[in-house]
Amino acid sequence: MPLDLEALAQAITAPDEAARQAARDRQSRLTKPAGALGRLEELSAWASAVQGMCPPHDFTRAVVVVFAGDHGVATTGVSAYPSEVTAQMVLNFVAGGAGINVLARLSGARVRVVDMSVDSDYSDFGGIAPEVVAYKVRRSTGVIGREPAMTLEEAEQSFRAGMTIADDEVDRGADLLITGDMGIGNTTPSSTLVSLLTRSDVVDVVGRGTGIDDAAWMLKCAAVRDAARRGRAVKGDPMALLAEVTGPDLAAMTGFLVQAAVRRTPVLLDGVVSGACALVAHRIAHQAKGWWVAGHRSTEPAHTQALARLGLDPILDLGLRLGEGSGAALALPVLNAAAATLRDMATFDEAGVSDRERP
Amino acid sequence: MPLDLEALAQAITAPDEAARQAARDRQSRLTKPAGALGRLEELSAWASAVQGMCPPHDFTRAVVVVFAGDHGVATTGVSAYPSEVTAQMVLNFVAGGAGINVLARLSGARVRVVDMSVDSDYSDFGGIAPEVVAYKVRRSTGVIGREPAMTLEEAEQSFRAGMTIADDEVDRGADLLITGDMGIGNTTPSSTLVSLLTRSDVVDVVGRGTGIDDAAWMLKCAAVRDAARRGRAVKGDPMALLAEVTGPDLAAMTGFLVQAAVRRTPVLLDGVVSGACALVAHRIAHQAKGWWVAGHRSTEPAHTQALARLGLDPILDLGLRLGEGSGAALALPVLNAAAATLRDMATFDEAGVSDRERP
Repeated sequence: MPLDLEALAQAITAPDEAARQAARDRQSRLTKPAGALGRLEELSAWASAVQGMCPPHDFTRAVVVVFAGDHGVATTGVSAYPSEVTAQMVLNFVAGGAGINVLARLSGARVRVVDMSVDSDYSDFGGIAPEVVAYKVRRSTGVIGREPAMTLEEAEQSFRAGMTIADDEVDRGADLLITGDMGIGNTTPSSTLVSLLTRSDVVDVVGRGTGIDDAAWMLKCAAVRDAARRGRAVKGDPMALLAEVTGPDLAAMTGFLVQAAVRRTPVLLDGVVSGACALVAHRIAHQAKGWWVAGHRSTEPAHTQALARLGLDPILDLGLRLGEGSGAALALPVLNAAAATLRDMATFDEAGVSDRERP
Repeated sequence: MPLDLEALAQAITAPDEAARQAARDRQSRLTKPAGALGRLEELSAWASAVQGMCPPHDFTRAVVVVFAGDHGVATTGVSAYPSEVTAQMVLNFVAGGAGINVLARLSGARVRVVDMSVDSDYSDFGGIAPEVVAYKVRRSTGVIGREPAMTLEEAEQSFRAGMTIADDEVDRGADLLITGDMGIGNTTPSSTLVSLLTRSDVVDVVGRGTGIDDAAWMLKCAAVRDAARRGRAVKGDPMALLAEVTGPDLAAMTGFLVQAAVRRTPVLLDGVVSGACALVAHRIAHQAKGWWVAGHRSTEPAHTQALARLGLDPILDLGLRLGEGSGAALALPVLNAAAATLRDMATFDEAGVSDRERP
């Protein structure tokens, strides 16, 4: 039976507005000028709303899920790195040596890598832990722009896998989910989604990815233009759109984002891949957005377009373009600092400090 | 004997350029596309340079020094809060209930509050720990714009106190210093310094401070204009400038910034007060800047002007305007994350990941 996306959307409820209001009230009594903590104040209110409590606790059980997959389009010269790097990096995540491992450790988050469509069976590397490939749908994808990335059935299987992973992590106690990605070529489908869903010109969304030169950038623009042309025909059908121009990794992340909202679990979004999937998830269920915060702004222009369309203001803007969930993991201490200020700062009454109303 | 500022400047040496280069070399071998960690890469190289080692260690012995003082100009309607709040907040810092206490705790930093010129003897509050007032120079200041803030002797005494405090903290093992401030009215002298030292129009530097309304903003503009007029006459003499338009708190912070560089100790700068003092310290000793990083950009327009003049790009931009060292303390985890990625990420060789040169 095909997935009923409308029923899924109906299952999403809003964060707790009473807790958000209680947070704003408490902010106004803390020993500081009103508004002096800037974005931290709004983030603390969001934390209260998604936790349903004021003051909020720190997010201490955060999980970064890295959705890994290869992309057929990478064979057409749109990336600075060969596809074999995707499998190598999956092993690097498992070994704990990648950027996201270091950043997640500092932020107190766990890292889980999920191979959805990496073009390797790891036999060259002596195999891999079965849980990493438990949801694998296929090896790589069709070359988008020329052919569908995958079948509709594969897209739905991937989307459901993302939902299952969200359920699994929430059931295991995650209090915050972070979307990570790994896949040589994955900024090409992401840019395609953003171009289509924000009606942006191709040249306004295509970036340098892992650091391509001008010639590769032109090839990438052509690939995105071709893929957007094919995707436009199915733009109104999210699952068909995912099948045509993305891949199992992006379809799974989209399902993960929707199901997190169904489960009333907050998500810290990472870069352009997260932003692109969030646009599709927002199409499916506009209420899901209340459960999301943007961790950072990447240098990919498509990411800025996606954030603008979603109305999300990123916490950090540090010129990162690593993916993996790295920018979001780096933002987690700031989010926890927001929660801590609301929880732990003294109020005017507690500290015997004069508020401006009583000079 | 008056302080020899030129000799002080001569005593400042540059951070370790060999360590900085080693950091850049190591960055290029980590398992990520070149440049993909954005600002973190440059921050990790700075951490290496100021520590004289690559890879750098985390900054685990950071100290926030909050320079507290009252300002006579606050009696002229330039602030939303009464001066009595300064002493109340000093007690709040000692009790651990202020924003900086919460943020420093999260970042693993210690907080030290130094009363340089608070307009209280704390007798209404049952006294205060002697170490808080050990360097106190006077209660409040003259109304800048009408009269000097303090005498030249008081300015020099304050500047020397800041130097002594830097020495003291370095001798006790601090590996990073953070400049904090507390003082109702202190954005008025800060804006004055920035207007003078960046040749900015008064209306381009004066902000809302703790949240003043339009009428108070106009009074503040007039106060800054008057103070800048008096300050301009002594602009070429840093100590006379500090005496004319600042106060013991700002003079102490300026000495602290210069002496930190003499002691080869890095500083994470906070908001507009730090930025203004950094401009004066930069006038005294332009080499000091190599030891500084800007923690954040506050909403005060003078801060943006100061950062631009100093050529410092802030780590965070979250709309904070609390002072106290809060924005810098919030940035410390990002700085430590930069150090950690350089130290702990696997290299291409270690992880068996293909670099782009060998597809």
